Amino acid sequence: MAGNTIGKLFQIMTYGESHGVAIGGIIDGIPAGLVIDLQNVQSELDRRRPGQSSIVTQRKESDIVHFLSGLIEKEGQTITLGTPIGFQIVNSDAKSSDYDNVETSFRPSHADYSYSTKYGLRNHKGGGRSSARETVSRVVAGALAQQLLSKCCSTEISAYVERVHNISMPNPPKFYPKEEIDSSIVRCPNHEITSRMEQCIAEVKKEGDSIGGAIVVVAKSVEAGLGEPVFDKLNADLAKALMSIPAVKSIEFGSGLSGTLLKGSQHNDEFTSIDGQISTSSNNSGGIQGGISNGEDIVIRIGFKPTSTIAKIQNTVNAEGKEITLKGKGRHDPCVLPRAVPIVEAMVAITLADHYLRNKTSKIEDV
Amino acid sequence: MAGNTIGKLFQIMTYGESHGVAIGGIIDGIPAGLVIDLQNVQSELDRRRPGQSSIVTQRKESDIVHFLSGLIEKEGQTITLGTPIGFQIVNSDAKSSDYDNVETSFRPSHADYSYSTKYGLRNHKGGGRSSARETVSRVVAGALAQQLLSKCCSTEISAYVERVHNISMPNPPKFYPKEEIDSSIVRCPNHEITSRMEQCIAEVKKEGDSIGGAIVVVAKSVEAGLGEPVFDKLNADLAKALMSIPAVKSIEFGSGLSGTLLKGSQHNDEFTSIDGQISTSSNNSGGIQGGISNGEDIVIRIGFKPTSTIAKIQNTVNAEGKEITLKGKGRHDPCVLPRAVPIVEAMVAITLADHYLRNKTSKIEDV
Amino acid sequence: MAGNTIGKLFQIMTYGESHGVAIGGIIDGIPAGLVIDLQNVQSELDRRRPGQSSIVTQRKESDIVHFLSGLIEKEGQTITLGTPIGFQIVNSDAKSSDYDNVETSFRPSHADYSYSTKYGLRNHKGGGRSSARETVSRVVAGALAQQLLSKCCSTEISAYVERVHNISMPNPPKFYPKEEIDSSIVRCPNHEITSRMEQCIAEVKKEGDSIGGAIVVVAKSVEAGLGEPVFDKLNADLAKALMSIPAVKSIEFGSGLSGTLLKGSQHNDEFTSIDGQISTSSNNSGGIQGGISNGEDIVIRIGFKPTSTIAKIQNTVNAEGKEITLKGKGRHDPCVLPRAVPIVEAMVAITLADHYLRNKTSKIEDV
Amino acid sequence: MAGNTIGKLFQIMTYGESHGVAIGGIIDGIPAGLVIDLQNVQSELDRRRPGQSSIVTQRKESDIVHFLSGLIEKEGQTITLGTPIGFQIVNSDAKSSDYDNVETSFRPSHADYSYSTKYGLRNHKGGGRSSARETVSRVVAGALAQQLLSKCCSTEISAYVERVHNISMPNPPKFYPKEEIDSSIVRCPNHEITSRMEQCIAEVKKEGDSIGGAIVVVAKSVEAGLGEPVFDKLNADLAKALMSIPAVKSIEFGSGLSGTLLKGSQHNDEFTSIDGQISTSSNNSGGIQGGISNGEDIVIRIGFKPTSTIAKIQNTVNAEGKEITLKGKGRHDPCVLPRAVPIVEAMVAITLADHYLRNKTSKIEDV
Repeated sequence: MAGNTIGKLFQIMTYGESHGVAIGGIIDGIPAGLVIDLQNVQSELDRRRPGQSSIVTQRKESDIVHFLSGLIEKEGQTITLGTPIGFQIVNSDAKSSDYDNVETSFRPSHADYSYSTKYGLRNHKGGGRSSARETVSRVVAGALAQQLLSKCCSTEISAYVERVHNISMPNPPKFYPKEEIDSSIVRCPNHEITSRMEQCIAEVKKEGDSIGGAIVVVAKSVEAGLGEPVFDKLNADLAKALMSIPAVKSIEFGSGLSGTLLKGSQHNDEFTSIDGQISTSSNNSGGIQGGISNGEDIVIRIGFKPTSTIAKIQNTVNAEGKEITLKGKGRHDPCVLPRAVPIVEAMVAITLADHYLRNKTSKIEDV
Repeated sequence: MAGNTIGKLFQIMTYGESHGVAIGGIIDGIPAGLVIDLQNVQSELDRRRPGQSSIVTQRKESDIVHFLSGLIEKEGQTITLGTPIGFQIVNSDAKSSDYDNVETSFRPSHADYSYSTKYGLRNHKGGGRSSARETVSRVVAGALAQQLLSKCCSTEISAYVERVHNISMPNPPKFYPKEEIDSSIVRCPNHEITSRMEQCIAEVKKEGDSIGGAIVVVAKSVEAGLGEPVFDKLNADLAKALMSIPAVKSIEFGSGLSGTLLKGSQHNDEFTSIDGQISTSSNNSGGIQGGISNGEDIVIRIGFKPTSTIAKIQNTVNAEGKEITLKGKGRHDPCVLPRAVPIVEAMVAITLADHYLRNKTSKIEDV
Repeated sequence: MAGNTIGKLFQIMTYGESHGVAIGGIIDGIPAGLVIDLQNVQSELDRRRPGQSSIVTQRKESDIVHFLSGLIEKEGQTITLGTPIGFQIVNSDAKSSDYDNVETSFRPSHADYSYSTKYGLRNHKGGGRSSARETVSRVVAGALAQQLLSKCCSTEISAYVERVHNISMPNPPKFYPKEEIDSSIVRCPNHEITSRMEQCIAEVKKEGDSIGGAIVVVAKSVEAGLGEPVFDKLNADLAKALMSIPAVKSIEFGSGLSGTLLKGSQHNDEFTSIDGQISTSSNNSGGIQGGISNGEDIVIRIGFKPTSTIAKIQNTVNAEGKEITLKGKGRHDPCVLPRAVPIVEAMVAITLADHYLRNKTSKIEDV
Repeated sequence: MAGNTIGKLFQIMTYGESHGVAIGGIIDGIPAGLVIDLQNVQSELDRRRPGQSSIVTQRKESDIVHFLSGLIEKEGQTITLGTPIGFQIVNSDAKSSDYDNVETSFRPSHADYSYSTKYGLRNHKGGGRSSARETVSRVVAGALAQQLLSKCCSTEISAYVERVHNISMPNPPKFYPKEEIDSSIVRCPNHEITSRMEQCIAEVKKEGDSIGGAIVVVAKSVEAGLGEPVFDKLNADLAKALMSIPAVKSIEFGSGLSGTLLKGSQHNDEFTSIDGQISTSSNNSGGIQGGISNGEDIVIRIGFKPTSTIAKIQNTVNAEGKEITLKGKGRHDPCVLPRAVPIVEAMVAITLADHYLRNKTSKIEDV
């Protein structure tokens, strides 16, 4: 029970079902005195918003966030009070009738069956709590986390779609500015590749099918020292945060899977010193060594499965255990990756902010 | 701070440095009345023990676990009291002089630099707390977790080495009995492949180099309903637990990376009903849907990097920021995977046991 | 940081400032399938509501709770889904101008100075987050906790005002039904005493002063076995929950302070057996032994200080450290006890519900 | 389940039964670089040690603590590494045969019955986990917490016996140096009162009976700003920590119970300013306002019940529900207060240290 909270010092707890009255949450632990850019929070929500382009779900939600506490207006600025920040996003375009046929049947590879087994009942409308609509709250918290990290140590976090289905960027992961990424509706910063991805998604949509792919996220200017051995290693907490995003199948840090094919002599990142500033000449470690950030870019690749909802007829069973066929209704993304980009950034930001605060008491001279 | 605990209801907290007096921990949350097989706990430690074969580190540790509390002897049986179980393993064969040269220098891709930056000082002997020796405590807790799961729902957890460097088993992941796996010193259940792996490790050892690979872990007979949406999803907590093992670079669930190349119509696991018993005809989900177990086998692949310590000369810097060269001393595994198998099983068992207990209060009829 | 959550399995996190847009929270961990009586939740809020009688604050708040998630309507019933229950209460009658004079000065025995020191800034309107208005969220969660406990083991929790200032009930603590308690606007179930208390509060109000007193809470039909040694003892967690209520100064369990004047031979509760049913012949332990409930009534006495806000002139200092005088404005309770009764019940219920769920995994035969 | 941990940033987890092999624990969260005075830790244990005087239990335990990890020797100093500090105290003088008669019967006002009900079985030897012997681990952690607080902000914590049975010090609580307190075997700093207390304990011991009393603890030089609204208020967490000590019946902060008899105009602590330094002219708040420390002395009174074990014949029942009589055996304290003094200080220190670290991230300018 009770799994709707994440973080130890930068905490977020969320509530809300896909077709309920509202989605929202509480953010606790942001230090007092941080000047907040509310417009930036809304911009991040807009990047996740349904209906933003032709290749995503056509559900129409304005996704306007309302802050209910924890902030004060002072001399034209919005400032954190150190008290919990409550917020909510009202649901407006729920078409629950689209889900009538799944009230008593289990959609393949959805959470219908496992929720029913666990709880004995479930809210079938729009997938209820298992819907990716829940991630809207994460984006709100992630935006604040990014503002905190930016203020405290100039950290920047940026994610992009590296691969859609089998169409992949040719170059290794690197940091791209958000504007460059957002110039493409697929959120891939390579212009030639992005148009092929766009076309691929359009075709799959027409087929009534779906596809997956990979997102790369890079965090730069990360303070060295983040991560708490041995269980709350930075990579461990990042893996948890990212794996809690719907549809994620795989996580790779730094050199990732391909790094496991190298020899130690090829893979080790040698330290160098330039004007007394220590860094590494390669970054196979992805910015984390022994579970602690070393100041290099944090690099993670996240694999997403194809969306479970498709418009094709599939075999399944109903609650009575009778075999039936089912055809997906509702408005869905043929490929979740373009909208998942801000969610990935949010989860990385929430985790880094939490560990940033936790690291403030590592040394006696800091306390 | 304070990152040495894992689990909410089945909790483990550990302590100990590689070359300190002892390594140990406390396990809290095992229900009272569980009959414990102490010999089995020791057997699991023996599977992780250094010096067990020619292809692993030659450090000689008997790794005998001593239980200090939480158990009672009754009619020839050892039974849990419901109180915390304290345990320790004494370190005996520490050769700290092997580490004299790294007291003030940073070994490439080790935790030396990040620990120094975080804490201002570190125990350099044997890597201190960052050493994989710390995982001995995990194996103790994991053995008890496996006994709990076995008693309560016949769950069996078994891991094997699927790939060493570029030598890989040809078939998809499946459950193998532990005896079959342990018949090979590499812990790969394919006889032909295992001998090639063994040879590869021997060669790399001779070169003074190291290699990585992949381990697959399968849990069968897992109760449906484990996992707490939305942040404590079963796959999220498993990812954290596994990513906290030293040298892990990647995690894949079910169909994993290759699943992200399929279309939804190919990837979805259709439900079937046989005599009213619901199951899925494929298992691309790897036994977890919407973050909750569905009763199918849980299947995870974990990628390991090549061991960081190698016997070759490498460039690095010392604490003063001066560039130096360094040659690894100490006794190390050219490939950590054979000894990592019981550690992987332990972390999966600890996570499943925690979620098994958490799931006991999901439904009103159960409480 | 991050102290706005309580509970491990039955969790509540709250947000909201006294004069902000709304007050609310999230309840996580209630098992799925519990039928909820929404009218009862509102009734509990009405018992805490300002303006309910002549002896309490005249702030006018309807305090209507809106549930936003976690519940489903089925066949005319409201049922928990097992997902987090978000709720909010809109603030309507905030008179922030009453607080203009305390924006830069520190009211004696209020949180103004300590908040300013901790956070560097504060929301002075109505006391911001330090206002007892925050407890409205606790009453919502407490009402659901009482419904859970009532359903699962017929537990009833009832609190009453035992003492106002120096006017005290003569008899030792016992269980009174809520209706009997609520028949008095002071919430004291002794008719003669209650009228003296009422008069005393009226006089003190006229003086522009304030008074304190004591509340007794009794929980009956509590399952034996609640409480987790050694730190999360039932009395320890109850003490924390109750001490977190504004204005609480003292907590006594069972025989309390007077029990510390007895000898062991007088104080010990002897066990008796009636038809094989074990109970104690006295209850100096207050229903808790070794930190674990023993099935007898849980009995706690809570002392409250006089309200800090008074209408008299007091000496204090402002933010610049200059000594000034201040006269309390705003609408306040001359005695908080009548309205604190449902808050005390709520905190006891939340703690018992949490431990009720935690106790479900104590024995191997239960899991 | 899982209640053997306390603290969020300064964490301690303990294990051990009264007559088991050893008692011990793990302390996690002390910043790296703190110079530790090991002799002082042992001195604190000596103050809690059985057999230290004629008025306490005659069990002979040397109570030598062994540290197993988390510390490094450097230039003659013992320094924290930032990693978890494992420690243990071996049990040597267990006389388990003294407890043969309680294996299947329930001692009045002990934890025998509640443990049996909760767990289905228990370790009856010496009370097992419910024995106050468990507090030895708290004293170790408390000593380190006091050293941390002393180093960081010169905080001093000192407790004394204010009352034994009905013999009480006449003056209000104040800070006494430890040496002054320890000059009396009762640990009461008033020479005339202490000899009457001593005599009273001796007489009660002769009668085979037991008595209780009250301890006052004062913490001075506490940083203003400690405590996290709204649930983790400093007084709330202190109440929990202190109520988790065996035999505690009541807790009072500042003016305590007697303060609840005052009017607001008498009770409020007015702020004054001396050379720009803000303080209060009285301290009825006991150093905590709105759940946050205000820099004044923290003052708490803790009431203890008479020891449950007495040498008189009492009525009780056995495990079969049959009524029997029982006479206490074993070596016990006729009055626990003299030995409880260092335990009280330890729990206050652990809580303050935790909140000291938590407060490091309250303001944006600090992070």
